[in-house]
Amino acid sequence: MNRAEVLAEALPYIEEFRGAYVVLKYGGHAMLDEEAMDWTIKDTILLKYVGMKPVVVHGGGPEISKAMEKMGKKPQFIEGLRVTDEETMDIVKMVLVGKINTEIVSRFNAVGGMGVGLSGKDGQLIMARKKAPQKVLRAGVEREVDLGLVGETEQINPKILEILTAQDYVPVIAPIGLTKDGKSLNLNADTVAGDVALALRAKKLIVLTDVPGVLRDLKDEGSLLRTIRSGEMDELLREGVIEGSMIPKLKACAKAVEGGVEKTHIIDGRVKHSILLELFTDEGIGTMVLRD
Amino acid sequence: MNRAEVLAEALPYIEEFRGAYVVLKYGGHAMLDEEAMDWTIKDTILLKYVGMKPVVVHGGGPEISKAMEKMGKKPQFIEGLRVTDEETMDIVKMVLVGKINTEIVSRFNAVGGMGVGLSGKDGQLIMARKKAPQKVLRAGVEREVDLGLVGETEQINPKILEILTAQDYVPVIAPIGLTKDGKSLNLNADTVAGDVALALRAKKLIVLTDVPGVLRDLKDEGSLLRTIRSGEMDELLREGVIEGSMIPKLKACAKAVEGGVEKTHIIDGRVKHSILLELFTDEGIGTMVLRD
Amino acid sequence: MNRAEVLAEALPYIEEFRGAYVVLKYGGHAMLDEEAMDWTIKDTILLKYVGMKPVVVHGGGPEISKAMEKMGKKPQFIEGLRVTDEETMDIVKMVLVGKINTEIVSRFNAVGGMGVGLSGKDGQLIMARKKAPQKVLRAGVEREVDLGLVGETEQINPKILEILTAQDYVPVIAPIGLTKDGKSLNLNADTVAGDVALALRAKKLIVLTDVPGVLRDLKDEGSLLRTIRSGEMDELLREGVIEGSMIPKLKACAKAVEGGVEKTHIIDGRVKHSILLELFTDEGIGTMVLRD
Amino acid sequence: MNRAEVLAEALPYIEEFRGAYVVLKYGGHAMLDEEAMDWTIKDTILLKYVGMKPVVVHGGGPEISKAMEKMGKKPQFIEGLRVTDEETMDIVKMVLVGKINTEIVSRFNAVGGMGVGLSGKDGQLIMARKKAPQKVLRAGVEREVDLGLVGETEQINPKILEILTAQDYVPVIAPIGLTKDGKSLNLNADTVAGDVALALRAKKLIVLTDVPGVLRDLKDEGSLLRTIRSGEMDELLREGVIEGSMIPKLKACAKAVEGGVEKTHIIDGRVKHSILLELFTDEGIGTMVLRD
Amino acid sequence: MNRAEVLAEALPYIEEFRGAYVVLKYGGHAMLDEEAMDWTIKDTILLKYVGMKPVVVHGGGPEISKAMEKMGKKPQFIEGLRVTDEETMDIVKMVLVGKINTEIVSRFNAVGGMGVGLSGKDGQLIMARKKAPQKVLRAGVEREVDLGLVGETEQINPKILEILTAQDYVPVIAPIGLTKDGKSLNLNADTVAGDVALALRAKKLIVLTDVPGVLRDLKDEGSLLRTIRSGEMDELLREGVIEGSMIPKLKACAKAVEGGVEKTHIIDGRVKHSILLELFTDEGIGTMVLRD
Amino acid sequence: MNRAEVLAEALPYIEEFRGAYVVLKYGGHAMLDEEAMDWTIKDTILLKYVGMKPVVVHGGGPEISKAMEKMGKKPQFIEGLRVTDEETMDIVKMVLVGKINTEIVSRFNAVGGMGVGLSGKDGQLIMARKKAPQKVLRAGVEREVDLGLVGETEQINPKILEILTAQDYVPVIAPIGLTKDGKSLNLNADTVAGDVALALRAKKLIVLTDVPGVLRDLKDEGSLLRTIRSGEMDELLREGVIEGSMIPKLKACAKAVEGGVEKTHIIDGRVKHSILLELFTDEGIGTMVLRD
Repeated sequence: MNRAEVLAEALPYIEEFRGAYVVLKYGGHAMLDEEAMDWTIKDTILLKYVGMKPVVVHGGGPEISKAMEKMGKKPQFIEGLRVTDEETMDIVKMVLVGKINTEIVSRFNAVGGMGVGLSGKDGQLIMARKKAPQKVLRAGVEREVDLGLVGETEQINPKILEILTAQDYVPVIAPIGLTKDGKSLNLNADTVAGDVALALRAKKLIVLTDVPGVLRDLKDEGSLLRTIRSGEMDELLREGVIEGSMIPKLKACAKAVEGGVEKTHIIDGRVKHSILLELFTDEGIGTMVLRD
Repeated sequence: MNRAEVLAEALPYIEEFRGAYVVLKYGGHAMLDEEAMDWTIKDTILLKYVGMKPVVVHGGGPEISKAMEKMGKKPQFIEGLRVTDEETMDIVKMVLVGKINTEIVSRFNAVGGMGVGLSGKDGQLIMARKKAPQKVLRAGVEREVDLGLVGETEQINPKILEILTAQDYVPVIAPIGLTKDGKSLNLNADTVAGDVALALRAKKLIVLTDVPGVLRDLKDEGSLLRTIRSGEMDELLREGVIEGSMIPKLKACAKAVEGGVEKTHIIDGRVKHSILLELFTDEGIGTMVLRD
Repeated sequence: MNRAEVLAEALPYIEEFRGAYVVLKYGGHAMLDEEAMDWTIKDTILLKYVGMKPVVVHGGGPEISKAMEKMGKKPQFIEGLRVTDEETMDIVKMVLVGKINTEIVSRFNAVGGMGVGLSGKDGQLIMARKKAPQKVLRAGVEREVDLGLVGETEQINPKILEILTAQDYVPVIAPIGLTKDGKSLNLNADTVAGDVALALRAKKLIVLTDVPGVLRDLKDEGSLLRTIRSGEMDELLREGVIEGSMIPKLKACAKAVEGGVEKTHIIDGRVKHSILLELFTDEGIGTMVLRD
Repeated sequence: MNRAEVLAEALPYIEEFRGAYVVLKYGGHAMLDEEAMDWTIKDTILLKYVGMKPVVVHGGGPEISKAMEKMGKKPQFIEGLRVTDEETMDIVKMVLVGKINTEIVSRFNAVGGMGVGLSGKDGQLIMARKKAPQKVLRAGVEREVDLGLVGETEQINPKILEILTAQDYVPVIAPIGLTKDGKSLNLNADTVAGDVALALRAKKLIVLTDVPGVLRDLKDEGSLLRTIRSGEMDELLREGVIEGSMIPKLKACAKAVEGGVEKTHIIDGRVKHSILLELFTDEGIGTMVLRD
Repeated sequence: MNRAEVLAEALPYIEEFRGAYVVLKYGGHAMLDEEAMDWTIKDTILLKYVGMKPVVVHGGGPEISKAMEKMGKKPQFIEGLRVTDEETMDIVKMVLVGKINTEIVSRFNAVGGMGVGLSGKDGQLIMARKKAPQKVLRAGVEREVDLGLVGETEQINPKILEILTAQDYVPVIAPIGLTKDGKSLNLNADTVAGDVALALRAKKLIVLTDVPGVLRDLKDEGSLLRTIRSGEMDELLREGVIEGSMIPKLKACAKAVEGGVEKTHIIDGRVKHSILLELFTDEGIGTMVLRD
Repeated sequence: MNRAEVLAEALPYIEEFRGAYVVLKYGGHAMLDEEAMDWTIKDTILLKYVGMKPVVVHGGGPEISKAMEKMGKKPQFIEGLRVTDEETMDIVKMVLVGKINTEIVSRFNAVGGMGVGLSGKDGQLIMARKKAPQKVLRAGVEREVDLGLVGETEQINPKILEILTAQDYVPVIAPIGLTKDGKSLNLNADTVAGDVALALRAKKLIVLTDVPGVLRDLKDEGSLLRTIRSGEMDELLREGVIEGSMIPKLKACAKAVEGGVEKTHIIDGRVKHSILLELFTDEGIGTMVLRD
């Protein structure tokens, strides 16, 4: 396929997405590898060039654990969620907001974009509540374990995002929530990305990972599922096709499409310009999650 | 070069051209071959999709001659300009405005665009004056020959174009001028395209022809001149590199760039999506005429 | 009645019509006699001066027949409708759009107005469908005859008219329709005028003819019907009071008033300033068609 | 001249005056005769209908004197100016603002207009200063006589007029000025009308009187001066052609045209619809004062 | 309570009242004592400074009687309402509009505000109808007595108030109504204030009097009723707690709160800055009338 | 002085400051004492209520040192400036942005305001350059010492502040700068507050400290200097009246007033509602720095 046809294929998508919100979850490779981070951010800025309103949500698990260890604290996880005491919460905020978020914003500005760092507190962006204690099976006995300052979204107030994107800024969001009484809570970044996409009635939610998408057989890239309907989720969970960190990603996608987001995608952040391929070619890449 | 990179290369151009006028002169192949006309019009509509304001000017020489012959009149040319008596002028108007222009507009509408046909009379778009008699060498003697109702642009009133493009219509202009006392004059379409580009302070003027651009050696496509400065024009004319119908095209380009149009291009309308390649790739195609 | 009172009587009408659409059907004398055409156009421009939005629709039957004969084709009519083959359609377009329409526009511009010529194709102004075959009684036998490329309005898209009138241009419309698959169809100008008035929710539709209005007795101007209710139409048709080319005029008026146009008028284009007399005096002139 | 031509003549004036301020000085007959007042007000409202912004200034001399006499005070004049002590000023305000102004406003509202009564105090419309003592010749000796609370305009603040006319109200102004320290001053109504016209950059100032205009010979209506240049004023004063209450009228006109008001007129308020005749016919009526 | 806390207490009220209409009824002391009038007007202007839209209504009873006596007419009252014949009405207009209203407006302008005087006629602000004859007990016999030109509000057209307040003017209203046939009627100022507050959906109506509010025992200021519900009115009337001129004040307040005005207050105009204390302190002063 | 007069005195200031930027530097007590922080934030929100645009800048020295010690790093200062290596810079960012800034923002939201946390990176708010090495006298020898990642403002881009304040958010700024090549620099908070005030053309800069203002004799609060002209600065420095951390505060104030900020103030953050007293009373509190 020659260049002329690539263009003729791409342009209608540009028309389609003009003025639309596209929420991007940065994760894995796209945040660890200098070069990958660079092209990911450049692609995000290109979206703005052609008239979209990109909004970025990022995680930061590995860096938080590293910082905890440096301060002599042992990270502890239950069902993939970090047990978060007050001291850990302070470290989470300092690493996510003070380090990772400011670094992404710096990079945006370094390549000519205009990032603005936010956490859930700014303009009451993410109001959250404490997560109920998790039921855990320990030595054959089910027990409830309190995860501490781990939360879930109660309400997204997207006004601050609307204002900033209207002025051509790219909001970069750290997944920290604010309770009604002014406390901070640790949130899952994939879930926040989905909630933000939903609140903005985004046209697209794109989750960057380090695999080609959802694979029936993890060892076989040819087993990629190109499309998943939100209603198929339960069966895929039962079958064990979706597992581990892919679970919150797919749940976020499913909730988003059911709430009005048009299309959601889990794509491979290791592939150069994967965002552009997803948005501007007929086939796209990765796994698309659609409404039932 | 893969698709992702074609896109990454193209997007900044889209940003650059947002809101800009691009004047397209349809001619040759692009107006005679059904399929070529189709892709040319589709490409024009794509320009609108990504935020530009395309304006089309068309000619129609061969069809006019055909209609004249059908009505029993013999077309007559002096230095490439059609001698135009009153009756011929009626035929010119009927063919250009009543037939060719309405056909282009129909095609725009058939593929989802929104064409609006105009001639120089509509909203006093093109005010023109009669061309002075041409000096012709006949049998060794220089004589002045009056071309009849052949004119040249006196003033372009682009307001109607601004109004229509602001509302997402594509103006399609037949090159007929209006004199102050309400007469019609036959104008050269290339010249009109240049004058319109100039009046709109267009960012680009693109002239579609049936050759790859200006060739040093007409038989060798490898001799294509990629860039011509407006100041080099005289020498190229003297050398005979520019000749025939290429003369008004290059003169229109040169006048436009000197009046403030950023770049002008003579490209090959036989190449599929040549307009897109010119606008959205780093190399472009054809011959670019730049200000000195 | 002295001048002061004429003015005192006229001014409230000007208030009433401010900003309102007035659709004028040019026909007969007003298009054949140079002087009549002149004052008709000047009056149309005056309407714009006092804040109305005039829109003109014109026909062109006699000129089309003349052109056909010149090209060696014999015009053929069935029930007053021109049988239109492909070749005839080309002639219709060339004469209506290329000749008559451009001439009216030239005259507008010559007297200081700002006409813009349109056909139904421009901006998909008049979407049309082919007319069903007409039942004709031939030699005592009813047969269906296909009229060829003769159409009827399917949808009017008045946006282009709204844009142009908002900018003080006077749209001048040639009655050619566009089918969904991009074909041209020959339409009745009176019908188009009524459809346009309806789509614009015009305050007035004024049809110019060569008689004083609808006469009970064609030979007695005193038998003028000053007012007709749309519900009386059928009876008048049965009685033969309405016949010939008056039929489509009255049907257009009746359909318009029933669809929301306030008042419609059939007036004598041979009377100088008849448009002004109709609009700005208490009695008006001609025949007014009102909603039942 | 028939009705159609009256209209064709009038309409261009309506175009010309659209959106323009027209200041009308009501006086004499137009304020004393019930019927004349009625048509004068109706004509004023018609001006608003066709898009002008009429502003009315009124006087009230005879009524003030009547009220004074009722309260047992003897009116006293020096050079045509009323000597105004504190008590007289109270009577002036009560009669001009409380009686005449409210009556004119009532009449406007009764015939469908929307008058709003103002004096120079409202919104600091007319800031005034005390008039210097007048030099008077008494028994052969020149003496200075203080007129008391008689003033002259220092500054017009037209904002309140602009706001009201923009909202389709007709401001009706009583000629009372406000000094910087909050005192009221008695002003000449003709002068105020001229000052207001000037501050609004009105297109017209029309002063209604009880004579046909300026007459060379008061007993011969045929001696009407149709046009006076502001530079001719001095000579006409010397010759005694302008005298009495005509002096402040003509001075107001002359000052207005020299400050930018286009045309000023002194017309006969006893002629029915004289305002309309002045504004909408080629000849106009009365005396026009033009810039030199 | 120190200054810092007075401010901290006041500021939220300023936020609360931003952009809100506050209708002030000037009466008693506030209109008779030079100094009190001065601070009342200054406080009104301060309201505008902090973003409110004050509207003033004033009465003028004592001055009218004085003027009548001067003109040799004996004022006559029935149930507290002035019997108003034509001549009296003229005096009412002259005093209220020509004298009191212009004086208040002058004072506004003198202290830097921008008052605009209005009566009910201006812009048809107060349309009124004649009050029905009052039933009066005379010598043991109930008789109907016609009060003459005394009216009650039929409709308030607040547009003129909205326009003026939007432009930072303070409207000052004399309580004179306009009948449909253009007559003037004498209205009660308290009632007009309530009606205007209601039509504007004012946030507050504040009635200035010469007592601390509604007192259970007129001789004991400690018996002040801080709050009255509109539903308690009837009982208080029966008990005789509300009597005399307090009746129309409380009725106006009750009608206003039932129609949507948030809070209404009767406060002591003799207390310096009483308006500010009412609006910007937690306790307020005087009697507040609330919706049931 | 009673409440009514406190209010009458305060309101004109509210008018004066409507829509004006007020930059507040939070420091000392106002950031360490829970209760003081609370009232400081509430007062800041009140400013917004009455129409100002407050912008907050905060420091955080003591907390940074505490965090460094926790991580086993020894804070080192030269001339009051923290020597900042890469690791220290990471700690500075984490503490200032991740901890202090998010805490202030949480508190704003908890009391009904709408804080948005920013650092100099967001929207390229503070572009900075590395500070030149400081000359230090060590053991009698002057040496240049490089302070590491310590910077000074190069340019403030206030657009993001304008956008947020226009939407009623309160920006809360951590003093971290961004270099052209995307590095972070540690900045002095007082200096940043002054630079921001200057870039916004703020009407006021208010620096909160733990002393009553500038004292001639530190032990005598009666020696408070109520006013300092920017030109007196040098002499006061020479005399040693200004010393220690008061130096950057006064320099920031002096630079701000010379660049167009109207007034700057150094006030006692330990006094309850000190911000309100400064803004809304005639005397103000603390030391005012004015332009020479």
